[in-house]
Amino acid sequence: MARINTNYNKLAAGYLFPEIARRTNAFMEQNPGAQVLRLGIGDTTEPIVPAVLKGLSDGVLALGKEESYSGYGPSEGVLPLRQALADLYAERGVSLDPSEIFVSDGAKSDSANIQGIFSQDCVVAVQDPAYPVYVDSNVIFGRTGDAGESGYDGLVYMPCTEQNGFFPELPDRKVDLIYICSPNNPTGAVATKEQLKKFVDYANEHKAVIFFDSAYAAFITDPDLPRSVYEIEGADTCAIEMNSFSKTAGFTGVRLAWTIVPKSLRTEDSEAGKVHALWTRRQNTFFNGASNVVQMGGLAALSEQGREQTDAQVAFYLENASIINEGLISLGITTYGGGNAPYVWLKTPDGVSSWDFFDKLLGECHVVGTPGSGFGPAGEGFFRLSAFGHRENVEKAVQSLKDNLKI
Amino acid sequence: MARINTNYNKLAAGYLFPEIARRTNAFMEQNPGAQVLRLGIGDTTEPIVPAVLKGLSDGVLALGKEESYSGYGPSEGVLPLRQALADLYAERGVSLDPSEIFVSDGAKSDSANIQGIFSQDCVVAVQDPAYPVYVDSNVIFGRTGDAGESGYDGLVYMPCTEQNGFFPELPDRKVDLIYICSPNNPTGAVATKEQLKKFVDYANEHKAVIFFDSAYAAFITDPDLPRSVYEIEGADTCAIEMNSFSKTAGFTGVRLAWTIVPKSLRTEDSEAGKVHALWTRRQNTFFNGASNVVQMGGLAALSEQGREQTDAQVAFYLENASIINEGLISLGITTYGGGNAPYVWLKTPDGVSSWDFFDKLLGECHVVGTPGSGFGPAGEGFFRLSAFGHRENVEKAVQSLKDNLKI
Repeated sequence: MARINTNYNKLAAGYLFPEIARRTNAFMEQNPGAQVLRLGIGDTTEPIVPAVLKGLSDGVLALGKEESYSGYGPSEGVLPLRQALADLYAERGVSLDPSEIFVSDGAKSDSANIQGIFSQDCVVAVQDPAYPVYVDSNVIFGRTGDAGESGYDGLVYMPCTEQNGFFPELPDRKVDLIYICSPNNPTGAVATKEQLKKFVDYANEHKAVIFFDSAYAAFITDPDLPRSVYEIEGADTCAIEMNSFSKTAGFTGVRLAWTIVPKSLRTEDSEAGKVHALWTRRQNTFFNGASNVVQMGGLAALSEQGREQTDAQVAFYLENASIINEGLISLGITTYGGGNAPYVWLKTPDGVSSWDFFDKLLGECHVVGTPGSGFGPAGEGFFRLSAFGHRENVEKAVQSLKDNLKI
Repeated sequence: MARINTNYNKLAAGYLFPEIARRTNAFMEQNPGAQVLRLGIGDTTEPIVPAVLKGLSDGVLALGKEESYSGYGPSEGVLPLRQALADLYAERGVSLDPSEIFVSDGAKSDSANIQGIFSQDCVVAVQDPAYPVYVDSNVIFGRTGDAGESGYDGLVYMPCTEQNGFFPELPDRKVDLIYICSPNNPTGAVATKEQLKKFVDYANEHKAVIFFDSAYAAFITDPDLPRSVYEIEGADTCAIEMNSFSKTAGFTGVRLAWTIVPKSLRTEDSEAGKVHALWTRRQNTFFNGASNVVQMGGLAALSEQGREQTDAQVAFYLENASIINEGLISLGITTYGGGNAPYVWLKTPDGVSSWDFFDKLLGECHVVGTPGSGFGPAGEGFFRLSAFGHRENVEKAVQSLKDNLKI
């Protein structure tokens, strides 16, 4: 008599983005002529740059010849790619062994799966608002109670507010696993070295583990801001870092990412090396590696030419962010983020709720964004606009806001 | 104070294939001149066929143009591919809605992850021997006790022996989740419709769920043998099926598979539709879809030309199986499988243990195979040889067996 994992029943609502898609589709059905402008999901829109495209094509062609055909690769990724990633970190003064870098199909998968190698009774802290995957994966694993008005029982929310510049204070009770995303999705805030140092020191003192999601690190333009948690002294004993090719190389659909588990990482009940071994075992058991074709694309993205071209694309999206930001400010709307991140975080006018603002923006301006409350209780009253989009559409969306938004 | 998931400590040994790689590498270091012939891991060796290669290339080129670039796709796969898979099943008289077919990056991932949507206290039954991922994923989820001489406490082993033709009797106690692999890895045995019907009836009577791994279905040549569990009446209310492009299209490194969760599937504590909804939620939370490039390759593999070319490759591997089988028989070794599967399952001569036979075969013949005991207690005294290989290497390996094996 099979029974289901009832933790799924605790999940408060459908995953945020399907719900956005549902409302958008309903609007389009009711308004067949309307052109909907999407600044919702952070999905890349620009074609893959030539150098990376050539890497992918070469990866495909290699599979058609006996001498270069390849089957199963290491679950952790091919060595040249792990080495190229280690070299990338070395440029920032971060020394990593390639075996500490695990290539995967996505930072989403990794950030959802990483919690599974830790004990079910670990107490989890998340920034509030936060990327929903952190919360949902822990709910499904059984680390929370039911959802109430202020979030899930048993989960420690660390509010990110206007008052603290959208980076949280240390948790007010002892926690074991801490999710930090910087540049932040959804707020666009970037943690300073001093802010991260406080959390690294806390984690080392309490033998906690930090999951550091740096998927948007390439959008940091300020040279003083850290792009990796390992730029902070002491992070190698307490932090796991995820990053991705999605937003830099336009790989949201192509699928390639990496996670760093330092060999020096320890827990209360394990010595250095154990967590690295657990993640190795997890990946060997549940995963068979990212596509070999895609890994060749990733390698090309890290070549000199690949980096020049993808850097230009990142700069293009940051210009979009500026255009959105300036448009909102001209309407008297308060905004955050956007300078070192592809997201603009705005305060809804007149204290309107996040979902009401979603419906208002869609109805009045035909613009799709993402309700802040979908990212956590402290996101209520805020709204995320994504800078990923063709320039023409971004400009149209901003113009539509200026022309049609009733505030 | 973070603590680890101690279920990992129960895992009896390293995952089977890394251990094989370790012993093989050690042998090669000690015997630098030796040419090692690999019939171990079931890894494809022949180049990807032209029609599929074109699909992959077109998938890459599309990403270089603004009008055809695509970012995030549905986690469940693009509709044309889900539809093409539904059409494939329709040819066998199996009617599926495309929304019941979930495209993924691997049958390994899916067969490891599927158990996670069920309750932790479900009792699990596996064929013995079985693909290690079924067992290990349940150990990690906490459904077993420690490992002893006869396997993991709490896990129900269904012995597959010479006496029962390598298909098990119904379990002798009530079980909730049942793994069946046909054509079987490692034994190469294919379940008949009558054999499957017994399990389907059992599952419906006891509201159990069958996980049916049909990754090798394309190797079935006998028209009377079922290629899908849904050819059995009643399976749609009790069975989840996995299949893969790995072995048919040479996608072991490219990564593409699918899992079918019928909407009519129910459990003791849920109505029809709930398990389908849970798997949808699981994939939306933990996964972002198979690579868009790779899905285009999968679509090409299902085209008329793609199927002609991949069918020819499957036939080629089956010829390899015949060559291996005949070689072993000529040495007086008892063999099973190989006719409708890419694996030959042999009884070790003189009752030698599986791992001793591994070392013997490697030492005497320089041939790498897979120890039967690595797949479960009942695999002891058996050994798997894989038919995936270049013809020249398969012939060399068989010749080396004939010339060098001391029996």
